[in-house]
Amino acid sequence: MKNFDHPQVKPYLITRTLFPENQETPIHFLNSDIVDGKLFYRRNHFSYPHFTSSFYLLPIDGLVHTPKIFSLQEIYSLPSKTIKVVLECAGDKRELFQPKVFGEQFGKGAISQGIWKGVSLRTLLQHTGLIDTAKEIVFEGYDYGERPDSNQIFNFSRSLPIKKALEPDILIAYEYNNQPIPFKHGFPLRLIVPGWYAMASVKWIKKITVIDKEFKGPFQVVDYVYYPNKENDGGKFSVTAANVNSTIQYPLDRQLLHTGIYEIKGIARTGEGMITKVEISLDGGQTWEPCQLNSPSEKYSWVHWNYKWEALKKGEYTIKLKATDSQGNVQPSEPFWNRKGYGYNAFDSIKVKVE
Amino acid sequence: MKNFDHPQVKPYLITRTLFPENQETPIHFLNSDIVDGKLFYRRNHFSYPHFTSSFYLLPIDGLVHTPKIFSLQEIYSLPSKTIKVVLECAGDKRELFQPKVFGEQFGKGAISQGIWKGVSLRTLLQHTGLIDTAKEIVFEGYDYGERPDSNQIFNFSRSLPIKKALEPDILIAYEYNNQPIPFKHGFPLRLIVPGWYAMASVKWIKKITVIDKEFKGPFQVVDYVYYPNKENDGGKFSVTAANVNSTIQYPLDRQLLHTGIYEIKGIARTGEGMITKVEISLDGGQTWEPCQLNSPSEKYSWVHWNYKWEALKKGEYTIKLKATDSQGNVQPSEPFWNRKGYGYNAFDSIKVKVE
Repeated sequence: MKNFDHPQVKPYLITRTLFPENQETPIHFLNSDIVDGKLFYRRNHFSYPHFTSSFYLLPIDGLVHTPKIFSLQEIYSLPSKTIKVVLECAGDKRELFQPKVFGEQFGKGAISQGIWKGVSLRTLLQHTGLIDTAKEIVFEGYDYGERPDSNQIFNFSRSLPIKKALEPDILIAYEYNNQPIPFKHGFPLRLIVPGWYAMASVKWIKKITVIDKEFKGPFQVVDYVYYPNKENDGGKFSVTAANVNSTIQYPLDRQLLHTGIYEIKGIARTGEGMITKVEISLDGGQTWEPCQLNSPSEKYSWVHWNYKWEALKKGEYTIKLKATDSQGNVQPSEPFWNRKGYGYNAFDSIKVKVE
Repeated sequence: MKNFDHPQVKPYLITRTLFPENQETPIHFLNSDIVDGKLFYRRNHFSYPHFTSSFYLLPIDGLVHTPKIFSLQEIYSLPSKTIKVVLECAGDKRELFQPKVFGEQFGKGAISQGIWKGVSLRTLLQHTGLIDTAKEIVFEGYDYGERPDSNQIFNFSRSLPIKKALEPDILIAYEYNNQPIPFKHGFPLRLIVPGWYAMASVKWIKKITVIDKEFKGPFQVVDYVYYPNKENDGGKFSVTAANVNSTIQYPLDRQLLHTGIYEIKGIARTGEGMITKVEISLDGGQTWEPCQLNSPSEKYSWVHWNYKWEALKKGEYTIKLKATDSQGNVQPSEPFWNRKGYGYNAFDSIKVKVE
């Protein structure tokens, strides 16, 4: 007979849609700083692309002095850089917006962190040079399909302004957690734009093109744009760097607890700069106390925080959390509502009952 | 190189809590009538029990003429019965209650269906006889632990009134989908009470005891009781048969769609009787049209229904669904709020946007 002494209990990805595949990381149930590739959230606009990776080549052309086609071997042989990076979908926490918005209803798990290794984009561009009129760099992925708002076929393409693209931490990555990037996360090459929401980190890069104007692809100027108004496009602006944000991992929302002493814990992150402070309220936001940060705050990474809570009095508690970053950004009490539901970063908030 | 032509895309269980393990079935992404054991929702009050299944014996004692201890071989050798049964957690859809209640925040997936095989409880009781004063039968599971509302240790135990217990479809089951019951679902023996919410279907049966009074265990008289009032226990009554209920599997809530023709589809079930009618509204409940039932309605099983929707006009649509059963029960427009959040069965409701 089987040994049932320790039946395996483990979390799984949380399915939001299957075709295309959109599945969240079970963020409340992670006990590692580094998300295993299997539990890394999957966010797709289209079905998975088909290409023959053994013939894979990366062309860089457009407004460059010397257009070049890189083989994977060439890329692997260039000086590399390894960075721990949070990737967070711009639609993370979308389901929390009130009024609710349309689109994939992500909870708090469209976020993962791990170790990306690759070559700086700027190193590759040193091999091609840039013509003076160059303004943006366009990254086209192999994934393509029809969009619900049109009958045209598009590849997933995004651009970066030249200045951003030349930052040394912008990687053409080929490893995740010391392994080739898992296919679903962009094998063989994925752009990694640390600090920006993850729509910028184009998977399965097909080609890189330097242009002298603003790129107008639909994933640049239709999606991944904040539209503050429900009925018109007034006041719109692009989604770029990730907002300062935090998530309470334990306890869970609506959990029933004994009286006792608990370690409330979770993560906090920001796009630009570092987390400097995490504060908690046990009375719905009236009074705040500092949480302990468990590790020195690093650029591009989330920090773990915790707070020892003596839950000695029975009753219902609304627990709120707010993080502050080194640029002075603080999570707001209310989210910035926008029609497509990007960048939710209001105080994280849960309710528990002590009985 | 690997063949990435068809990367596997599949749904997983949806984690609500890990210790104890509570994970939902990805109900929107099932394409079979029978839920594979791996995707069957897991609902536990405690950690998994430890017992040596090779020495497993089932005692039946208390108010019986001849107390007996059954071996598994004896049970397997008795006449068997095989029934397709829906099991649904009484807390299914709990997260939809407004105001929100405490406890595991199940969405719409704490429900699964499959083929259970076992011996009728009544057949076993013919071997022991029942003393005239017998009133209830108590089923104790091997799982035990502390409850959040006390410092005492309890096994998970539930009772059935004699009359219910003697219905021929009440099974001591040993197979699920033609295989031994998966350990997490009650191996080697699980009580199956078709039509009742699944707290009645005790897993890992340790013993069966016949008593002459009402059983007062906490999973009988504290949990699995409807408390209509937030602050007091007035008007309380036990959770028994499952309510008539339905779920729209496709499209998904808040999905964005092209104009076009869609097959809206889902399931409907009821505890006692059969589903006789499923109706859909595409205008938020003002007008209703009948759905097609894809299979003859059977006792204890869910039915699949579908509706061909010509979504030719752009805009937002609130889609509502209500099922009716052969007892005349109809899903209500508003849920019956109760403090512990059982039996949610208001109209299923989603919003989609056609663009």
